[in-house]
Amino acid sequence: MIVVMEKGATPEQVKHMAERVEALGLKAHVIQGTERTVIAAIGEKRAETKESLASGPGVEDVVPILAPYKVASREVKKEPTQVCVGSLKVGAGIIGVIAGPCSVESEEQILVTARAVKAAGATALRGGAFKPRTSPYSFQGMKEEGLRLLAAARQETGLAIVTEVMTSEEVELVARYSDVLQVGARNMQNYRLLEAVGQAKKPVLLKRGPSATMEELLLAAEYILNEGNPNVMLCERGIRTYEAHTRFTLPLASVPYLHHKTHLPVVVDPSHGTGHTYLIPDMAVASVAAGADGLILEVHPNPEQALSDGYQSLNFIQFNDVMARCRAVAAAIGKKM
Amino acid sequence: MIVVMEKGATPEQVKHMAERVEALGLKAHVIQGTERTVIAAIGEKRAETKESLASGPGVEDVVPILAPYKVASREVKKEPTQVCVGSLKVGAGIIGVIAGPCSVESEEQILVTARAVKAAGATALRGGAFKPRTSPYSFQGMKEEGLRLLAAARQETGLAIVTEVMTSEEVELVARYSDVLQVGARNMQNYRLLEAVGQAKKPVLLKRGPSATMEELLLAAEYILNEGNPNVMLCERGIRTYEAHTRFTLPLASVPYLHHKTHLPVVVDPSHGTGHTYLIPDMAVASVAAGADGLILEVHPNPEQALSDGYQSLNFIQFNDVMARCRAVAAAIGKKM
Amino acid sequence: MIVVMEKGATPEQVKHMAERVEALGLKAHVIQGTERTVIAAIGEKRAETKESLASGPGVEDVVPILAPYKVASREVKKEPTQVCVGSLKVGAGIIGVIAGPCSVESEEQILVTARAVKAAGATALRGGAFKPRTSPYSFQGMKEEGLRLLAAARQETGLAIVTEVMTSEEVELVARYSDVLQVGARNMQNYRLLEAVGQAKKPVLLKRGPSATMEELLLAAEYILNEGNPNVMLCERGIRTYEAHTRFTLPLASVPYLHHKTHLPVVVDPSHGTGHTYLIPDMAVASVAAGADGLILEVHPNPEQALSDGYQSLNFIQFNDVMARCRAVAAAIGKKM
Amino acid sequence: MIVVMEKGATPEQVKHMAERVEALGLKAHVIQGTERTVIAAIGEKRAETKESLASGPGVEDVVPILAPYKVASREVKKEPTQVCVGSLKVGAGIIGVIAGPCSVESEEQILVTARAVKAAGATALRGGAFKPRTSPYSFQGMKEEGLRLLAAARQETGLAIVTEVMTSEEVELVARYSDVLQVGARNMQNYRLLEAVGQAKKPVLLKRGPSATMEELLLAAEYILNEGNPNVMLCERGIRTYEAHTRFTLPLASVPYLHHKTHLPVVVDPSHGTGHTYLIPDMAVASVAAGADGLILEVHPNPEQALSDGYQSLNFIQFNDVMARCRAVAAAIGKKM
Repeated sequence: MIVVMEKGATPEQVKHMAERVEALGLKAHVIQGTERTVIAAIGEKRAETKESLASGPGVEDVVPILAPYKVASREVKKEPTQVCVGSLKVGAGIIGVIAGPCSVESEEQILVTARAVKAAGATALRGGAFKPRTSPYSFQGMKEEGLRLLAAARQETGLAIVTEVMTSEEVELVARYSDVLQVGARNMQNYRLLEAVGQAKKPVLLKRGPSATMEELLLAAEYILNEGNPNVMLCERGIRTYEAHTRFTLPLASVPYLHHKTHLPVVVDPSHGTGHTYLIPDMAVASVAAGADGLILEVHPNPEQALSDGYQSLNFIQFNDVMARCRAVAAAIGKKM
Repeated sequence: MIVVMEKGATPEQVKHMAERVEALGLKAHVIQGTERTVIAAIGEKRAETKESLASGPGVEDVVPILAPYKVASREVKKEPTQVCVGSLKVGAGIIGVIAGPCSVESEEQILVTARAVKAAGATALRGGAFKPRTSPYSFQGMKEEGLRLLAAARQETGLAIVTEVMTSEEVELVARYSDVLQVGARNMQNYRLLEAVGQAKKPVLLKRGPSATMEELLLAAEYILNEGNPNVMLCERGIRTYEAHTRFTLPLASVPYLHHKTHLPVVVDPSHGTGHTYLIPDMAVASVAAGADGLILEVHPNPEQALSDGYQSLNFIQFNDVMARCRAVAAAIGKKM
Repeated sequence: MIVVMEKGATPEQVKHMAERVEALGLKAHVIQGTERTVIAAIGEKRAETKESLASGPGVEDVVPILAPYKVASREVKKEPTQVCVGSLKVGAGIIGVIAGPCSVESEEQILVTARAVKAAGATALRGGAFKPRTSPYSFQGMKEEGLRLLAAARQETGLAIVTEVMTSEEVELVARYSDVLQVGARNMQNYRLLEAVGQAKKPVLLKRGPSATMEELLLAAEYILNEGNPNVMLCERGIRTYEAHTRFTLPLASVPYLHHKTHLPVVVDPSHGTGHTYLIPDMAVASVAAGADGLILEVHPNPEQALSDGYQSLNFIQFNDVMARCRAVAAAIGKKM
Repeated sequence: MIVVMEKGATPEQVKHMAERVEALGLKAHVIQGTERTVIAAIGEKRAETKESLASGPGVEDVVPILAPYKVASREVKKEPTQVCVGSLKVGAGIIGVIAGPCSVESEEQILVTARAVKAAGATALRGGAFKPRTSPYSFQGMKEEGLRLLAAARQETGLAIVTEVMTSEEVELVARYSDVLQVGARNMQNYRLLEAVGQAKKPVLLKRGPSATMEELLLAAEYILNEGNPNVMLCERGIRTYEAHTRFTLPLASVPYLHHKTHLPVVVDPSHGTGHTYLIPDMAVASVAAGADGLILEVHPNPEQALSDGYQSLNFIQFNDVMARCRAVAAAIGKKM
C-alpha cells in the first residue's frame, strides 16, 4: 500500500502516518519525492488498512498494491478450476452449455424444452422456480413445484439442473432438487446468501451484479470459497451503462481478464447481456471466441407466450443454429463443446 | 402501451399483434402512420404485458406509457408522506437528520457520539450492527451486542435508532431494538428482505442501489408498501458511474424528481455519495437546498481510528459546522430543521 | 411520435397539443386511455418536432417512433455497403485489417511496421501524424512529416493508409496523403469536421465517441453521408463506463446491432477498447466472431519504447498470432479475411 | 510514480525497469514487499512516462502520484481566480448568472430576453449563434447574424455576451462580437479549438464533456492556459450515466472537488444538467449551495415555441422565481449574487 501525502504535508504528519502504518503491523518506508512524500506500507495487507489510513492528517490518497481477494486468485492456484456436476463440465478447455426457460411454467414446457436443448447439445438445464422480479406485480415463479418439475426433467434427460436461490433460508430447499445453485445478479452482494451457498457444498453459479467491479465479483466469490466450497463459476451477464439499445452492456473483455486474475471458470449469459433475441446468436459465438468456459442461454418453446423474458429467449430452431455456430468456433480455437 | 411495428410488418402481423393485445384484456387501437403502424393498447396495465408483446412477430419495440408502480405514486396520493418515529420526523417540510458512526464499535464510542450528534441537532442516531462488507476479511459488525448498545444510547439520549438489517431472517431481531429498519443499497432488490420489512410494520429507510433506476427504486418501495407498511423513506446515496474522484456520483436531481413522482420522503446520504470527508459539508448543504427531507451522515469521535468508513466520516466539530450551515439554508428556503 | 399527456391534463390542454401537432404539419390522432390521453402524431418527422412538443402544457413525455437518421438506415438501403480503397476492402463478407503504430515516430519505425503487418495479412496501415492528446505536454505527432512517411510506406508496400484528421482546416492536407480519413472518438461530434470530411470524398473511418449512443453515432455518419460521401466505416472502440480494469468497455453487441440498423460496415478497435496488450488477442478474435467487418489494431516494433499507447500495442509476433487465430474463426463463420 | 511489478517478476525484470525509470530522467527507488516489488520513480513527471513504463516486462501496473495538470492546479496558485468581463464577475465569492435562450432566433426574441433576465438579476446574456446539433437536419443557428443580434442586445442592456464557438476557424469571428468564448461539451477535447481560444485572449467558458473525468477537464483547461489565456471558467453541465429520467446526471460534488484542486471558477448548468424545466429550479438552488461561482441557465420568452431546448428552458416568471430563491441561499452561505 502506498500512502500519498499532500504537497504541503508537514514532517509531523509524515511521522504520524508512518507510525500509524507501523501500528497496523506493516513496515513503513518513507520516500521523499521532488514534489510529494509517499509512504510505502510493506507486509501482508489487512482489509481495513486502506480505509483506516485514508482519513489521516495530511494524507491525499492511499493506493492499494495487492488485490484484496486471495483464494480466488490465480497467484494462489495456477491451474484452472473445472466444475463438474452430472452432465455439466465447465472450464479447463471444455465449454458447458446451460439452456432452458427463464421460468419453469408447466411440466410440459420444461420437459419439452429439456429434450430440445439436450438434443441440440446443451449439457445442463436452467429454469427459474423462485424468480426475483423488479415489480411485486410480476409472476414470481412456481416455487417448490417448479423445483419438482426441474428434477423430473433431470430424471428423464439426465441434464444437470441449474436454478436460482434467492435467500439463505431457501438454500436447503433448492439444494435438495438442484445440481447447481445460482446466485442472481441482484444478490451478488447478499452476503448471508453467499455464506449459505458456501456452506451448501453444491457448485455455485455466481452472476456478476450489474454494477459490480471485477474486484467485487471476486470478493463475492471469496465469501463462498471461504466457507469451503471450491466449485464457483463466475458469470458475466452484462453491466449497466448509459447504453439503452441493449438491456445491459455485455463486456466480453471480462473473460480474458478473469482468466488472468483467477482460476475460476467464466460463464457468459448473452440473453441478459443483450436483452434482444436477435443479438444473442452473434454474442454467444463471440463469447466462445473470447474464451468463455460456458454459456447460459434462455430457450423457450414459444417465446411469444413466455411468462417472463420472452424478448430475450431463443426458440428451439434458433438455439439449434446458435449451437452449430458456437461449435464451429470452439473447434477453430481448439476448445471442446 | 404502444406496440411499434417494424417498417415492413405485414397486415397479418399487425392483425396478430392486435389480437394478442386484446387477448391480454386490453383494447387495441391500430394507427397507420406514413412509415410505420403502431398499436395503442388501452386499459389497465399488467406487469408482464410489455415483456409478453415485445417478442411478437414484426414488433420493433413496445413503449410503456404508464409507470409500473402504483401505491408509491403521487398520482394515487397527492399529499407528501411524513414519517414520524420517536424523535425523528422526515418529510412534509421537516428535515430529519440521522447521524452516527458507520459501525457500532464500543459502548463508549456510541454513547459519546449519540450525545454529540444530539447536541448538534441530529434527530436520530445511526450505527451499523450487522455490516455488509465487500470483503469477507473485513470487520463484520458487533451484531446483537451492537443492537444492545444502540438501544442503550436511545435510552440515554432519546434519539430514535436507525440500523441496517441484512436478511429476512434477522428482521425480527433487528426490529426488537431499532426504530427504523434500514435496507442497504446492495439489498435494494433483495425481495425476500423487502417483503419481510414490509411485514415488520416499522418505518423503513430504503437505500437506492448503486445502479438502480428511479423506477426500480420505486418498485422496491412498492414491495414494502404492498405488504401494508406505508412508512418508507427513500434514500439517495449515489450511483456508480465512470467518475473515480468520488466514491459514487451523487445525483441530487433525484430529490425533485422523486418529489414529482412519489409522496414518499427523500433522504440524502452525502457520506456514501461522495466518499471523502472534505466533500461532505458542501454536498449536505446542497442536498438541503435541493429539497431533501432528511440527511444521513457518518459521524465518528475519531475518524482516523474508525473500524470502517473513516475516510467519509465527520468528526464532532465538522458535524457541528455542517449542521449550522444546513440550518441556515433550510431557513432560507422555508424548511424546518 | 406519441405525445403522452399527464394524468390530470385538461381537455383544453389536449386540444391545444393536438393543434400544435397539426401546426407542425403532422396529423394528430387523439386516443383516450383508461388513465391517460395520448396523441399520436402521424407524418414525416422533422428533427425539432420532439423538442418543440415536449414543453407543451400538460405534456408528460414525447416518445419518438422513427429513428432520426435516414441515409444511414438499413430501411433505405438493404444491401450492405462495402468500402474499397486500394488494398483495403471492408464489409459485405470481407474483413479488412488496419494495423500499425499509434504514432508515426520515424521512417524506419513505420517502414518496418508496414512490412511486418503486411506479411502477417493486414490490408491497410494505420499511423497517427496529428495526435489528439489529453495533455498539452504529451507528444503531439510528427504532423506533415508523418504524413509523408506514411505515403512512403504505401509506396513500398502497397498498403492503403488510414490516418486521423483533427480539424476541418487540415482535411485537405491529410487527404493529400491518406487513403482513409479517420475521425477520432473525441471528434465524433465535431460537426465542422464531419462536414469537411463529407466534402472530401475520401472514405472515412468514424470512431464512436466514448459516451455516444448508437443514434448519435449514426447521426454523425449522417452528417458525412449528407455531404455526398457514401464511404463511411463505423468504428466501435469502446465506451466509458464505471469499469476501471479496462481502459474502456468494449460492447461487441454494437456489431450485430449496427448491422441490423445500418448498411454501413463496422470496424472494431480492440486496442483502445481494452487498453491492455494481454486482452487484445481474445477480443480481436471475439470481434470477428461477433461479425465485425474490420479490425484496427495498434502494432509497434517495440511497444516498450513507443512514444504513445505502448501498453496497448502488439509486437510483430503477437500480431502474427492474432491474425492466425482471427483467420481460423473467420473461416469457421464463413467470412473472408 | 509507482511501478508495481507482477508477483513472479524476476530480478532481471526489476533491474530492467529500474534502468528504464532512470533513463527517463527519474530516480528509481526499489522497494521489496512481502508479496511484490514496487519501484518508486522520483522526480518531475513527464506526460509520457506512465504510458512508457506500463508495457515493460513483468510490470503489473503503473500508479501515477502527481496530477498531470500544472497551471490549473491549486498547488501552483492558492488564491481563487475571478473572471471579470464587462457586467460579468465569476468567482472569489461572487456568483455570476449567465441567462438567455439556447439559440438566438430573432431580434425581438433576444432583446426581450436580455431585458427580462437583466431585470431579474442576470449578469450576462447567453445565446447560441453557431449551434452544434446532433442531427444534420436540426436548426443550426443564425450564425453571424445571430452574433450581431447579441451585440445589439449588449448595446442596449450592458450585459456581457457569452456564446459558443465551434471550430478554430471561427474563433476570430466570434471573438469580434462576444465577451466570453464558450467551448461546448462536445468540443471539450477539440484541441485545435482549445489552442485557438487560448490565443484569443478573451475569457473562456469551458464545458465539461459528458464523459470527461475531472482530470481530462483540467487538462483541457491546461491547453487554454498554456497558450497564455488565464481567464478560464470551468462549467459542470452533467455527465452521461445509465440514468434516463434526466437528460444527463448533474454531479454537484464536482464543485467542491474542483475548488479543492484548482483555482479556476466553477459554473454550473442546471438546464443541460437535468434536461427538464421542472427540475431546474431546485438544482439551480442546490448548485449555489454547493458553492458554484456561477450559473448558466436557458431562458426563453415562450419555451413552447423555442427552436431548440424548449423542454429545458425557463420562462421569465420561472427565471425570476429561481433568482429569488438562489439569492436567498447565496445570502445564507455568505456569497454575493
